[in-house]
Amino acid sequence: MCQLLGMNCNTPTDICFSFAGFSARGGETDVHTDGWGIAFFEGAGCRVFLDVMPSNVSPIADLVRHYPIKSKHVVAHIRKATKGEIALENCHPFQRELWGRYWVFAHNGTLEDFTSPQTDYYRAVGDTDSEAAFCLMLETLRRQFPDGEPSQEQLQASLRQSTEKLRQYGSFNFLLSDGDTLYAHCSTSLYYIVRESHFAAAHLIDRDVTVDFSKLANPDDRVAIIATTPLTDNESWQPLATNHLYVFRNGRMLDLHQ
Amino acid sequence: MCQLLGMNCNTPTDICFSFAGFSARGGETDVHTDGWGIAFFEGAGCRVFLDVMPSNVSPIADLVRHYPIKSKHVVAHIRKATKGEIALENCHPFQRELWGRYWVFAHNGTLEDFTSPQTDYYRAVGDTDSEAAFCLMLETLRRQFPDGEPSQEQLQASLRQSTEKLRQYGSFNFLLSDGDTLYAHCSTSLYYIVRESHFAAAHLIDRDVTVDFSKLANPDDRVAIIATTPLTDNESWQPLATNHLYVFRNGRMLDLHQ
Repeated sequence: MCQLLGMNCNTPTDICFSFAGFSARGGETDVHTDGWGIAFFEGAGCRVFLDVMPSNVSPIADLVRHYPIKSKHVVAHIRKATKGEIALENCHPFQRELWGRYWVFAHNGTLEDFTSPQTDYYRAVGDTDSEAAFCLMLETLRRQFPDGEPSQEQLQASLRQSTEKLRQYGSFNFLLSDGDTLYAHCSTSLYYIVRESHFAAAHLIDRDVTVDFSKLANPDDRVAIIATTPLTDNESWQPLATNHLYVFRNGRMLDLHQ
Repeated sequence: MCQLLGMNCNTPTDICFSFAGFSARGGETDVHTDGWGIAFFEGAGCRVFLDVMPSNVSPIADLVRHYPIKSKHVVAHIRKATKGEIALENCHPFQRELWGRYWVFAHNGTLEDFTSPQTDYYRAVGDTDSEAAFCLMLETLRRQFPDGEPSQEQLQASLRQSTEKLRQYGSFNFLLSDGDTLYAHCSTSLYYIVRESHFAAAHLIDRDVTVDFSKLANPDDRVAIIATTPLTDNESWQPLATNHLYVFRNGRMLDLHQ
């Protein structure tokens, strides 16, 4: 299995602290050593760092831990291969373009016996169930709304339908973002926390690192962090309910009901 | 204007030496300071590093200069903005998927008054003429070969037609790769060199760095380097003829005639 880390904020924020704990699980405090990746949206742009090396020793992960890239939407993944060999093309997050935006997707779980129907607009490059599922979700959106981007309600309804179909094949914890919204779906394990004023200090579980956000954040900042399991041991992480598609925007969870 | 750097090899090779010289042109020895990017194919996978910071000071460029990522196809770009503001979404190379492969594209030049016709499969995210041209080239391939990947001859003929149309708008030096082949087209300036046995020492123009490839390379290695202007001062770089689409595979130029 794999692990997921997501961040959604109302102002561009770096993820160095959370990623320091998360990336330790790629070989140091946990066994997710089969590659990793992280996507940062910056305006309309998006950059994805990928590596097949374990995240606890990868020089690229070291850069990401120490170089404060500011973003409102981040999706990260450490991999323990189940479907698909250890290879760069199988590292999450995957990225595609739809309606003139980049979309990124990372998945934790296994979709057993899932074979995608033939798609026209989006094809997987690697051989993971995850990338095939992502391509099918985007293909469904394209076919359902051939005239272009629909309303948020229509878009979310389509994503919920795709998610319902796909989770029948197995465990489908995922994070998805188009740089405007961060979607999170939990089959087995996803937790979240919203950091906002009044900020306090946070201490990582996987490394002995404390950051006092009251000294770093502005009073109006709001940051939602989503992770497979909590990253800190002195904050109140909430589990996401299973089989719900959660919507995060501006550091806030918008939709609790399906 | 911008500058291009490409590498095509018969065995995965790192580009640290060439990139050390090339990236100095992003603020140190030249003025291409409006962002940069580099794409590495590794098997079917592809990773793209992008940054809006000048390549001579970017921490990500520093990583790329020192971390030997081995690849058979590399496309890099340093930007001097002409069309499109300085922003991540306007940094080259651009990446899309076609026929289950990643394609990457970087452009030097300006296509004046080029407005892409409406495309269905590929849309630009940023506002450069370059990304729009790339999307149109891939769209043309998709529409021309709806049943899937054609023969190499058909594919190259389509790319040549697209290139002929697009260069009517202006200067269209570009590098394009699908991880199988590296295509290079010269409107104003592109040079190349093939390093193969017997290898010798090479000395950069932009930094006082020498590498003795006779001590590093294997006798069977063959590496083609393509750049806007020569990167070394003791090797015999050849100019690419204008208005030809060159094809590189396994470190060799395959096609001299259009």
